[in-house]
Amino acid sequence: MSPPLDAVRQYLQDHADRNVGDLCEFLKIPSISADSKYRGDVRRAAEWVRDQLAACGCDVELVETAGHPIVFGSICQQPNAPTVLVYGHYDVQPPDPLDKWQTPPFEPDIRDGHVYARGATDDKGQMLTHVKSVQAWKNAVGDLPVNVKFVIEGEEEVGSNNLEIFLEEQRDRCSCDIAVVSDTAQYGPGIPAITYGLRGIVACEVTLTGPRQDLHSGVFGGSIANPVNALCSLIGKLVDDEGLIQIPGFYDDVLPLTDEERQAFDELPFNEQDYLGNLGMSAVFGETGYTTLERRWARPTCDVNGIIGGYTGEGPKTIVPSFATAKISCRLVPNQDAEQVVQSLEQFLRDNCLPGLELSFTSWHGCEAVLCDTSSSHMAAAQAAIETAFGKAPVMIREGGSIPVVATFKKVLNVDTLLLGWGQNTDNLHSPNEKFSLEAFHQGTLASACLWHELVQHHSL
Amino acid sequence: MSPPLDAVRQYLQDHADRNVGDLCEFLKIPSISADSKYRGDVRRAAEWVRDQLAACGCDVELVETAGHPIVFGSICQQPNAPTVLVYGHYDVQPPDPLDKWQTPPFEPDIRDGHVYARGATDDKGQMLTHVKSVQAWKNAVGDLPVNVKFVIEGEEEVGSNNLEIFLEEQRDRCSCDIAVVSDTAQYGPGIPAITYGLRGIVACEVTLTGPRQDLHSGVFGGSIANPVNALCSLIGKLVDDEGLIQIPGFYDDVLPLTDEERQAFDELPFNEQDYLGNLGMSAVFGETGYTTLERRWARPTCDVNGIIGGYTGEGPKTIVPSFATAKISCRLVPNQDAEQVVQSLEQFLRDNCLPGLELSFTSWHGCEAVLCDTSSSHMAAAQAAIETAFGKAPVMIREGGSIPVVATFKKVLNVDTLLLGWGQNTDNLHSPNEKFSLEAFHQGTLASACLWHELVQHHSL
Repeated sequence: MSPPLDAVRQYLQDHADRNVGDLCEFLKIPSISADSKYRGDVRRAAEWVRDQLAACGCDVELVETAGHPIVFGSICQQPNAPTVLVYGHYDVQPPDPLDKWQTPPFEPDIRDGHVYARGATDDKGQMLTHVKSVQAWKNAVGDLPVNVKFVIEGEEEVGSNNLEIFLEEQRDRCSCDIAVVSDTAQYGPGIPAITYGLRGIVACEVTLTGPRQDLHSGVFGGSIANPVNALCSLIGKLVDDEGLIQIPGFYDDVLPLTDEERQAFDELPFNEQDYLGNLGMSAVFGETGYTTLERRWARPTCDVNGIIGGYTGEGPKTIVPSFATAKISCRLVPNQDAEQVVQSLEQFLRDNCLPGLELSFTSWHGCEAVLCDTSSSHMAAAQAAIETAFGKAPVMIREGGSIPVVATFKKVLNVDTLLLGWGQNTDNLHSPNEKFSLEAFHQGTLASACLWHELVQHHSL
Repeated sequence: MSPPLDAVRQYLQDHADRNVGDLCEFLKIPSISADSKYRGDVRRAAEWVRDQLAACGCDVELVETAGHPIVFGSICQQPNAPTVLVYGHYDVQPPDPLDKWQTPPFEPDIRDGHVYARGATDDKGQMLTHVKSVQAWKNAVGDLPVNVKFVIEGEEEVGSNNLEIFLEEQRDRCSCDIAVVSDTAQYGPGIPAITYGLRGIVACEVTLTGPRQDLHSGVFGGSIANPVNALCSLIGKLVDDEGLIQIPGFYDDVLPLTDEERQAFDELPFNEQDYLGNLGMSAVFGETGYTTLERRWARPTCDVNGIIGGYTGEGPKTIVPSFATAKISCRLVPNQDAEQVVQSLEQFLRDNCLPGLELSFTSWHGCEAVLCDTSSSHMAAAQAAIETAFGKAPVMIREGGSIPVVATFKKVLNVDTLLLGWGQNTDNLHSPNEKFSLEAFHQGTLASACLWHELVQHHSL
């Protein structure tokens, strides 16, 4: 390590307890963005972040939005160094069901080397690592080697409705070379990872309406299209028994996995029996010709998320239902166009609908998949930083879920994002007893501190 | 007409008002079998029927069952004449929603030539025609030309759970040459009909269970079978786009319509545009090669009656649901074996289920289709009776619904049933403002009186 980084490392070691204390203070604020009765607490969390950033020497502002405020902070004193935008969120999921928590969700409890609280890993704990690394550089060295901007929002758990507006409006202020987000996970315990790909998503609802009321299935059955049968038939046609999606053109733009990626995925530890055991299922199923990791991370899907129609109470009721409705979503992979997929899906449904029924279709705002350049200097810097902090080179993984902000950064700011997750998938995100390993908290903070250093090193190469 | 029948007709004319008065008295009793708080009223209705039959000179008994009592009455004084078993029910559907009734459901109101009340046509009014015709013969002539037995139950609206037990136990007491049921309808206003065929039914519920809880569709989607997609796929495979059911062997035993039947159906007045207009639909759909009446009356079906799975609230929720469940019923046609159909259906579902899912299947008691001999002397007697009473020969129709008691009479007593409906499909059965035409009530009573006469005439032929 370079001498300044040594000083930073020493500072972090010396202030480890204080950092944990600050994290616990932050976790005590019930900043539940979904519930308006916590509006005051949400603002209090924003102010807490503002004050932390100010204490690091950042210029800070609470930017008002139509919803909860965005904390914008910056420390930009290196005109020749790269500029990093750190994104995170200070809001948390509702803690329900409360009776499943071993200790109260907003009274952080430290046990077994973890802090237990709502938001511990998602995202207060992970986000704070970057604040604490900036603070360490500032206090131990006097200045940062890079320029850092913070965009910490309070609406991630309710759809980030005002973030894109903010970025569009303050594009210049947010300009940067690379974004950093710590809101994913390591691949597993002791296996640090960088996530370089995300799936996108489109979601819609389709309703088939037949007779204006439920009909007697004896008197009328057989003479008109049954909306439930017809909807099932449509959905049945969407995916064949080999797991291939049948919408014309659906795979046309799909970027195939490279041989290198497939080999790298194959080399990751993955036990299918354990995977199934955790889910309580007896077999995997998916697109023919792909492994389970490939299916989850890099192949598109077409899943029904919910369906309802007709009589769903106890016992039989012999009716032809009046209508049926289903929610359908597709996970997208790189190069697929979200809008195009929604259009093809709607067209497929209309083309295959039985006569006499009315089809209505609505879709929600989607987002496209993300694939980051794994050969960039930023990526190399992140790999080096993680190897230093965790003592092990990160594995390069993709993730099946979607983080819309990453596509937004690409679109609005034209930058890639480094997805650096310090948590674990078993940290009970969105569930009772959410936790975050204190070791990961400290390692993540150190990795962040190293990242500022490495970005400069790799920038000048 | 023969002189005795002339006397009966005269008697019925003279006592028309009294008969309507008795009907209204009967309709005032809220004999709602589904609701235990009306248990006393249900019994009161049974006693009312008992007293009516006793007043006609019948031997009567209230036979206790595990549920509501069965009224058994008989007047058997003609050892050489045929014996008729009249079946009907004194219980009624619940009257909800009460606020949709123009006049209260148990305060019979006469307007526009109809009596409005719950049970007016289903089945108090229709059933009473046979009691009143016996009374007319008894009082006007002194004796009946045939032997008549009445089996009037109080549980038709809740599944007739104790009727078959009663018939099995009292098989000898119920022995007869022909059964008569007036619980169907005329083909239309001014078009009296005899229903000679009924569809049967089987009903089941199938549930597919996947992961032990709903999963994140990003993290897991694509790697396991989605229970909703899989259930839709199964259901989609049950019926093809030509309306043909794909269960192996499903049509093997189906008795085809004869050319004569198809021609007779074609000659019935039927306006498809009116039919669709009433349903609020834009097109018919059904098995290729059959007309709408044929599809409704004489071809089997496979209808989903209800389906549910996953998230069905507002907006999107991107999950892979844990399970999905559907209720499926098949209407059966003559010669199909209900048990065999259920077995084939279950086998088809199991054979086509995606890997990794658990399939559970339950079925409810079904009943087979009925086809009565249209060339029997009893049928000829009924045709003649209706022609005399209504001034018009009845059309011969089938019905798409199921009346399990008809199959039970065939099985237990080995007799056909004459389905002689005096009501109309527009009489609001099971709906608010149920009604029964007084003209149909009088015509039906006369037709019943004529039937006793004609059965003897055709018996001796």
